[in-house]
Amino acid sequence: MTAERYGGIEAGGTKWVCAVADASGAIVARDAFPTAGPSETLDRAAAFFAAQPATRAVGIGCFGPIDPRPGSDTYGWITTTPKPGWADVDVVGPLRAALGVPIAFDTDVNAAALGEWRRGAAQGLGSVVYMTVGTGIGAGAIVDGRIVHGLLHPEVGHMRVPHDRGRDPFAGSCPRHGDCLEGLASGEALRRRWGVPAERLDDPEAWALEAEYLALALVNVTCVLSPQRVIVGGGVGARAGLLGQVRRRLLELLAGYLPVAELTDHDAVERYVAAPGLGDDAGVTGAIELALAAAPSAANPPT
Amino acid sequence: MTAERYGGIEAGGTKWVCAVADASGAIVARDAFPTAGPSETLDRAAAFFAAQPATRAVGIGCFGPIDPRPGSDTYGWITTTPKPGWADVDVVGPLRAALGVPIAFDTDVNAAALGEWRRGAAQGLGSVVYMTVGTGIGAGAIVDGRIVHGLLHPEVGHMRVPHDRGRDPFAGSCPRHGDCLEGLASGEALRRRWGVPAERLDDPEAWALEAEYLALALVNVTCVLSPQRVIVGGGVGARAGLLGQVRRRLLELLAGYLPVAELTDHDAVERYVAAPGLGDDAGVTGAIELALAAAPSAANPPT
Repeated sequence: MTAERYGGIEAGGTKWVCAVADASGAIVARDAFPTAGPSETLDRAAAFFAAQPATRAVGIGCFGPIDPRPGSDTYGWITTTPKPGWADVDVVGPLRAALGVPIAFDTDVNAAALGEWRRGAAQGLGSVVYMTVGTGIGAGAIVDGRIVHGLLHPEVGHMRVPHDRGRDPFAGSCPRHGDCLEGLASGEALRRRWGVPAERLDDPEAWALEAEYLALALVNVTCVLSPQRVIVGGGVGARAGLLGQVRRRLLELLAGYLPVAELTDHDAVERYVAAPGLGDDAGVTGAIELALAAAPSAANPPT
Repeated sequence: MTAERYGGIEAGGTKWVCAVADASGAIVARDAFPTAGPSETLDRAAAFFAAQPATRAVGIGCFGPIDPRPGSDTYGWITTTPKPGWADVDVVGPLRAALGVPIAFDTDVNAAALGEWRRGAAQGLGSVVYMTVGTGIGAGAIVDGRIVHGLLHPEVGHMRVPHDRGRDPFAGSCPRHGDCLEGLASGEALRRRWGVPAERLDDPEAWALEAEYLALALVNVTCVLSPQRVIVGGGVGARAGLLGQVRRRLLELLAGYLPVAELTDHDAVERYVAAPGLGDDAGVTGAIELALAAAPSAANPPT
């Protein structure tokens, strides 16, 4: 008898990571490839899983915006993305047709939040927000042990934060909103404002400004959702020293108003604003957790 | 046999409303009185319930910030409030001692959110945010049918929003944060900026600015928490015509990025941003719901 496998896809705008795990969640095979056009990319993912024995279900953590609402006409689609070729693309349908197993579908950041909550830096907590700061900015949230969807899903990159045009005359890079959080603090914003990619940006003033915007974002996440922990991932979020600056500004901005150690104490805030425990594997780990929950079982019979 | 009664207190900074309901939640008696010093106010509330027959439990929706964390050394306290005399005051302890019944304790706005969700404008939904805009600004949230606490509880009044000092040179009224949301858009901010109380303020420019700040706040609530509905209560929130302006600016600020009817369509947004269904009774109704959940029962034996 072949052991059962559970598949996960971290479907990003730059690359896709496909992996299969055993029933314990341990990854036993993986593939990663650059994101091409939709049909080529979906075909390659389907081929990876088709070559694996007995994959019971596949979970997808997908870049977006997506429609994760079961029953919606566009459930399983990427919707209004500016990424060329990928707007209004059905992701779930082709994979379900090719593989014939249940497909679970959620945002990339919800999958990463789930991965970190089940196996990473937020194990044992009731609530967590996973925020990624890379080319774009997004977040997923777990409240009382469940992924937050609500009306659609959180889109923290598009919140509005104070923008001091005296200190920072850059108008913002978001095509829809200009100087929303993503327009001011994403990797794309850094590249456009400073003329070099974030990974080659070394001006201390630039990183102090970045820490300011991320601290303002964390003030708002804290004041609206009150999570027990915020995990900051993504390529920009991983910049050495950045989270330390963000934590210091967060405490200054909150000014002691919320009387818990995590929001007033310089040691405790290191627990509150944390780096990912799973590194780059948070998304694909969470996608596999989605598959484990979606697979047919005695508690969850096939429909 | 005397019918069982369940008590609720809307404990506000200006007045307290005490009510008792029967097991169906229907209010059968009430009292309201101005908030005096802590001991006088708590004594009056205790006397009201002591005069009622067979009160099984009392729920409190309390102004704050409060400590709602069971097991904390300061559970049941009002903590850092600037209201004279009320900082570091134990609210639950004296009422439990006086009445000898279970006391449930949460924020005023969480109670209002619970009331609106069980009996008001958010019945049947999975998630809702209740935001009050009065002397201060606060919000409570229900996600997947449960009140959101997390690290502490949401404090949306202290989020940061863009502040165009060209259009609005007012520095903000918040003693801790200056121009946080509450510092720019609360009733206190309106009074200080314009020199008249909000109820006597009739300058269209003033109300357009107020709608701008509230729309920015709703962008952030939407992007962080993704609720299915936002209910806007409070004295300032009830201003005729204000919610209509807020809805229009919310759609303009989101610019179609989130592809659901509630956030793109002028008719559907009226459902998304709603007035309270219970009017001024949301808080005390939710407090009674807290008592119903806290009362000893077969499922919830006394401890």
